Amino acid sequence: MPENNNEIPDIVIGRLPLYLRALQYMVLEEQMVTSSKELAERLGISAAQIRKDLSQFGEFGKQGTGYQVEFLIKKLRQILNVDTIWDVIIIGAGDIGHGIARYPNFGAQGFRVVAVFDNNPNKIGTKIGDFSVQDSAVMPAIIKQSNIKIAMIAVPASQAQLVVDDLIQAGIKAILNYAPITINVPKGIQIQYIDPVMHLQKMTYYLK
Amino acid sequence: MPENNNEIPDIVIGRLPLYLRALQYMVLEEQMVTSSKELAERLGISAAQIRKDLSQFGEFGKQGTGYQVEFLIKKLRQILNVDTIWDVIIIGAGDIGHGIARYPNFGAQGFRVVAVFDNNPNKIGTKIGDFSVQDSAVMPAIIKQSNIKIAMIAVPASQAQLVVDDLIQAGIKAILNYAPITINVPKGIQIQYIDPVMHLQKMTYYLK
Repeated sequence: MPENNNEIPDIVIGRLPLYLRALQYMVLEEQMVTSSKELAERLGISAAQIRKDLSQFGEFGKQGTGYQVEFLIKKLRQILNVDTIWDVIIIGAGDIGHGIARYPNFGAQGFRVVAVFDNNPNKIGTKIGDFSVQDSAVMPAIIKQSNIKIAMIAVPASQAQLVVDDLIQAGIKAILNYAPITINVPKGIQIQYIDPVMHLQKMTYYLK
Repeated sequence: MPENNNEIPDIVIGRLPLYLRALQYMVLEEQMVTSSKELAERLGISAAQIRKDLSQFGEFGKQGTGYQVEFLIKKLRQILNVDTIWDVIIIGAGDIGHGIARYPNFGAQGFRVVAVFDNNPNKIGTKIGDFSVQDSAVMPAIIKQSNIKIAMIAVPASQAQLVVDDLIQAGIKAILNYAPITINVPKGIQIQYIDPVMHLQKMTYYLK
């Protein structure tokens, strides 16, 4: 869980990307105005919660007239710091590494994959889309040289902590970890986990 | 967000798999007893929150002596309904589908991938580990025949809603969706999302 140094709870921040995604679909559908009620129906979050979350950042809608979709998207992108493009690297060129390297939605959402690394000689030099897999040995130099702050790791669980330690040492500040293991990071470093087991176990609770 | 039909908040249920995973690492490290304080340090969740969450399900630890690791694992697995093995199917045999089909941790966590489906003739019949990719056309029959309740979908966003509709029609009750799109499901159907963008955007908030 990321540290939160201001007054807005981490859980609120975690919902903003969901709102942003729902609003972006409305743009595709050429919808100009929405309401907390409509967002609530799309997302399964209560309208009161959505209004409360958004009101923490400003006055984005009007009672009775709702939210201007494009305006709210712009504001959410500013709040989440994705009104810019972040360079992201991937470590691990296995199936998941391939999948995220080819993921089509990063560009529109504020991210650009700029390099893929692996320490397996059989993978170094192979192509993933437009990328040649690079040797992990050059990773720290590239992170520093290009001032990269974000990494996604898709390496075996046994290697994940060592990779993260190297990444942080080189200057990475935010890590999305696909390896099924909890990683220790110092204060001030963001880490998020993607683990299908966590999601499946949450759902089986409800499958009695 | 899943519906919650009893008094325990959904957010609490979502933390139980994290506790379970941390406890399972303690077993690997041959640790017999733990405390809410130690779990708190490992997980970045407050000790008070962990005690409060666990106390909703019973009296699992004693003041001063902490929690018996194996006992708490057993209880959490019962609560989450993963003291059994759930059959799971995968729809979509692309990179992500391959990655999750080969994911090594399902077995120990209550899940077993039993089939992979795709509608692309070039993929049908190809091998992923021990599986042959099957034609999506036979999917409904197999779901019904084997009474499968859980599916993971890794198909293009444009196909995801149609695939989910088919799955629910055939009897699936819980869906883990890797496609970058919000899906509509009827009440009583669980759906969870895995989207790297959501996690990255949450972290960039803190990268000022």
